[in-house]
Amino acid sequence: MSSEVVVVRIYIHEAEQGRRTNLQQEILALLHDRQRVKGVTVFRGVAGFGASGTVHAADLLRLVADLPIVIEFYDEPEVAQAAMKLLDGLVPDGHIVWWRANCRTIADGQPQA
Amino acid sequence: MSSEVVVVRIYIHEAEQGRRTNLQQEILALLHDRQRVKGVTVFRGVAGFGASGTVHAADLLRLVADLPIVIEFYDEPEVAQAAMKLLDGLVPDGHIVWWRANCRTIADGQPQA
Amino acid sequence: MSSEVVVVRIYIHEAEQGRRTNLQQEILALLHDRQRVKGVTVFRGVAGFGASGTVHAADLLRLVADLPIVIEFYDEPEVAQAAMKLLDGLVPDGHIVWWRANCRTIADGQPQA
Repeated sequence: MSSEVVVVRIYIHEAEQGRRTNLQQEILALLHDRQRVKGVTVFRGVAGFGASGTVHAADLLRLVADLPIVIEFYDEPEVAQAAMKLLDGLVPDGHIVWWRANCRTIADGQPQA
Repeated sequence: MSSEVVVVRIYIHEAEQGRRTNLQQEILALLHDRQRVKGVTVFRGVAGFGASGTVHAADLLRLVADLPIVIEFYDEPEVAQAAMKLLDGLVPDGHIVWWRANCRTIADGQPQA
Repeated sequence: MSSEVVVVRIYIHEAEQGRRTNLQQEILALLHDRQRVKGVTVFRGVAGFGASGTVHAADLLRLVADLPIVIEFYDEPEVAQAAMKLLDGLVPDGHIVWWRANCRTIADGQPQA
């Protein structure tokens, strides 16, 4: 009733720059065009701080603040690893976290591992 | 100081329909009324794409866009598995991901496993 | 290409009170000042319910609702465990969940475990 997947979370900031344009846009483009993965979701945090120790906070008066962004996806282990390999050099070191999980599937006569 | 739990994340969209009404509402009703679980939280993504490849994006002019929704909960493994079983047939196949985790508890003389 | 980390998620509510002031602020202050951890991000849920069964929902007319908050961070296992120890007694029992994960790093001649 479950197949193995890898969940990946990428921690960046809204205003972070990639190679040519916004980092978030570059990551999404890579995941969408070069290594299609299932279930990519982008979350915006309301506050946070990173290695620099800067505190980012969202409030009604600062809608365009540089808030934390998490880009999450999951897929079969091989696909997820290939996607992460694509992101090497684009995403700052240490900002991609991944773990093994299970994806629930409805057994249709042929129970899955 | 920690007990074993299962973390469950369900990936849907805001406008997705369930059996009779909005899918998010049906999932929350099931988790709340039929199989009470601890700590249900609903998150709204700001962008994302699924198997269809459509890109959803939130901006100030499209407050009612069909954004990604993640419904997350955690509980003892047996309770979480029973809750997922209830959701079979309601949530599209492959949209529920779960993994084992630890829930920190303060030892009160009787250390927990 | 990956080092082991522990991912920690703390589940509270926006209006929850800590020892002296707002709980979220107290947790962030502890993590920032007392036990610096990498990558702290605060997420606000749009709905949820806890052990009390109360349903919290965000809508355009209730911007100040008492919504669910998740404070997430990851770090080396020893640092994450020390951070959780600091939070004992501040965060209500059973509201901290953690699991082992991998943090992707780019091998620079010296492959990491």
